[in-house]
Amino acid sequence: MARPMPQPEQREPDARRYAKLPDPFPMWRGGALHGAQIAYETWGRLNEARDNVLLLFTGLSPSAHAASQPEDPRDGWWQRMVGTGLAIDTEQLFVVCVNSLGSCFGSTGPAAIDPATGQPYRLTFPDLSVEDIARAGYEVVRSLGIQRVDTVMGPSLGGMVVLAYAALFPGAARRLVSISGTLAAAPFAIALRSIQREAITGDPDWRHGNYPTDRPPRTGMSLARKLGTVTYRSAAEWQQRFDRQPARADLQHDNPFAAEFAVQGYLESQARRWVNAFDANCYLYLSRAMDRFDFSVHGEPVAIFAKSGLEQALVLGVESDLLFSIAEQRAVADALRAGGATTRFAPLQCVEGHDSFLIDIERFGREIRAFMG
Amino acid sequence: MARPMPQPEQREPDARRYAKLPDPFPMWRGGALHGAQIAYETWGRLNEARDNVLLLFTGLSPSAHAASQPEDPRDGWWQRMVGTGLAIDTEQLFVVCVNSLGSCFGSTGPAAIDPATGQPYRLTFPDLSVEDIARAGYEVVRSLGIQRVDTVMGPSLGGMVVLAYAALFPGAARRLVSISGTLAAAPFAIALRSIQREAITGDPDWRHGNYPTDRPPRTGMSLARKLGTVTYRSAAEWQQRFDRQPARADLQHDNPFAAEFAVQGYLESQARRWVNAFDANCYLYLSRAMDRFDFSVHGEPVAIFAKSGLEQALVLGVESDLLFSIAEQRAVADALRAGGATTRFAPLQCVEGHDSFLIDIERFGREIRAFMG
Repeated sequence: MARPMPQPEQREPDARRYAKLPDPFPMWRGGALHGAQIAYETWGRLNEARDNVLLLFTGLSPSAHAASQPEDPRDGWWQRMVGTGLAIDTEQLFVVCVNSLGSCFGSTGPAAIDPATGQPYRLTFPDLSVEDIARAGYEVVRSLGIQRVDTVMGPSLGGMVVLAYAALFPGAARRLVSISGTLAAAPFAIALRSIQREAITGDPDWRHGNYPTDRPPRTGMSLARKLGTVTYRSAAEWQQRFDRQPARADLQHDNPFAAEFAVQGYLESQARRWVNAFDANCYLYLSRAMDRFDFSVHGEPVAIFAKSGLEQALVLGVESDLLFSIAEQRAVADALRAGGATTRFAPLQCVEGHDSFLIDIERFGREIRAFMG
Repeated sequence: MARPMPQPEQREPDARRYAKLPDPFPMWRGGALHGAQIAYETWGRLNEARDNVLLLFTGLSPSAHAASQPEDPRDGWWQRMVGTGLAIDTEQLFVVCVNSLGSCFGSTGPAAIDPATGQPYRLTFPDLSVEDIARAGYEVVRSLGIQRVDTVMGPSLGGMVVLAYAALFPGAARRLVSISGTLAAAPFAIALRSIQREAITGDPDWRHGNYPTDRPPRTGMSLARKLGTVTYRSAAEWQQRFDRQPARADLQHDNPFAAEFAVQGYLESQARRWVNAFDANCYLYLSRAMDRFDFSVHGEPVAIFAKSGLEQALVLGVESDLLFSIAEQRAVADALRAGGATTRFAPLQCVEGHDSFLIDIERFGREIRAFMG
């Protein structure tokens, strides 16, 4: 047999740093993690007063790579928002973006090795809450010697996390930016997320969480991502974008019920990328954490915000969002304002649905730039 | 072994009649059926002039049992709409409701026996189009000696069917009522329906359509129905109805990611009922037919309606419909009006989404009653 030629080691570009979490790290709904870590990236420089920190939480899927930087020049998930001269101006700010606890891009989660067993946690990972993600981010900035951030910001899941941050750590943030988040998951969003989870758990390849790494529940993950893609966007956008154009031949497949129109090809290409990038159990934990989030468990929202030490807040959302309605955005803003923060609420007229913050950088950037000042 | 006691024969109440379709029955996209039939029910009496016929097509799922009647006193799918003194008044009208060709409640479809083989058609059933469903309904009223109906009416899929009816059979209807239908399926609706179909075809129990009758692809069917249930309703309705109430204990199940909230229990109960009632292959054919429907294949819509012989039309739809947008309702009404029919377009302020026509009988009934005169 011919031996394969030795290949020069190919290293993916990587700008991640790692923060060790306190050991044990107590989890909000019980249990604790040992030897846990959070992957994060930073942009800009911490100033001497240590008062220029923007702590950025992500939505369910992204890594800590919000934007390109020297060690990792690939585009990030908010590439046109974070950088020199951009709305989140890294000439002024020291931006810290964390990969959520429970995710699979360097932070500890169900796909990580449990030091107690030497095996991946899988479903032995303790219950994950939005509050745990907030606490993990708080520990990251503490590990950098920062006691109080200038701004805590997050979209989608991150929009829930920043509210939990304000509740759990009074005085730990001067300003808050909630983007398409909510005080508590709505039943319509719960319904859609629970269907996504059932698509995965109903896939025999899920094996009650014990799938081999090289054989994840692809069918269920693909379905979950396709449904996610639909619910993150809007009917009006897709009418403009796809109408009834036929699918590209290379995105058709042999299922006679599945690939005639361009919109189906788009869903397929999105799903293929994601299935290869995200861990199924991590997805299940993060998705369920979103359903369970309810700010009112911390107390009466206005009272909680009044104790939070927040001075200013910005709440952004869009009318076309199916998952986090504009009424929910208004409720977040009203509670922050009533709690004493100088609050701007900007309902934006974007057609791209929940994902608008990733796409309509002009509208979102204008608001964020004005707020950051 | 003890022998089971003989049981008295239990007969389900049944008010269906059957119409034989012409043999062969040519299908719109090719192929033909032999020995095919359509199940239908009727209410009221055909008058001597034979000019009091209302031909009613259904949405994707229902049978021909629109309302109770002596041979079948069970509630029908439009129980409060069809009957003596109701908006569709069976004292005046002779109502004929058909089970769609391709469905599984007595009409020929993929679950029926192919006389050529003695086996169910399954995926050998020819391509099914909305036009075929329209033609099958046309043949039912012809078999009753009716050349022209007073009104052809249908919601959802039925709203597509009535438009195809007008295109295929000029002069065969005096009036048309389109309820939450469309001139052509929108990409957002196509995306959602294609995910539902993939949930079924991705279930190993589907077996490329060859599942045993007693072992249908339950997991995929359940997912498809749950997603259907979400898309037929609206976020605003569910906020009022479920908020974040916990699930009833009897609707929880052992999946740790699936049943905490009342809305999830509701989805589960809906899915269980449907999985036991509907055939998976029939669902796939009907769902795909909806995606493929495009009225413009018949020609320029205004010109088609001008040739249709329609005198009056009523177009109903709701703002909260995710699948058949209010813009699509307006487009149907505009084309009918431009084609010469005296047309009323009523966008209704219902919060129940696409399914509003099944629920908000007061608003829909008022419009239908006024139109029927």
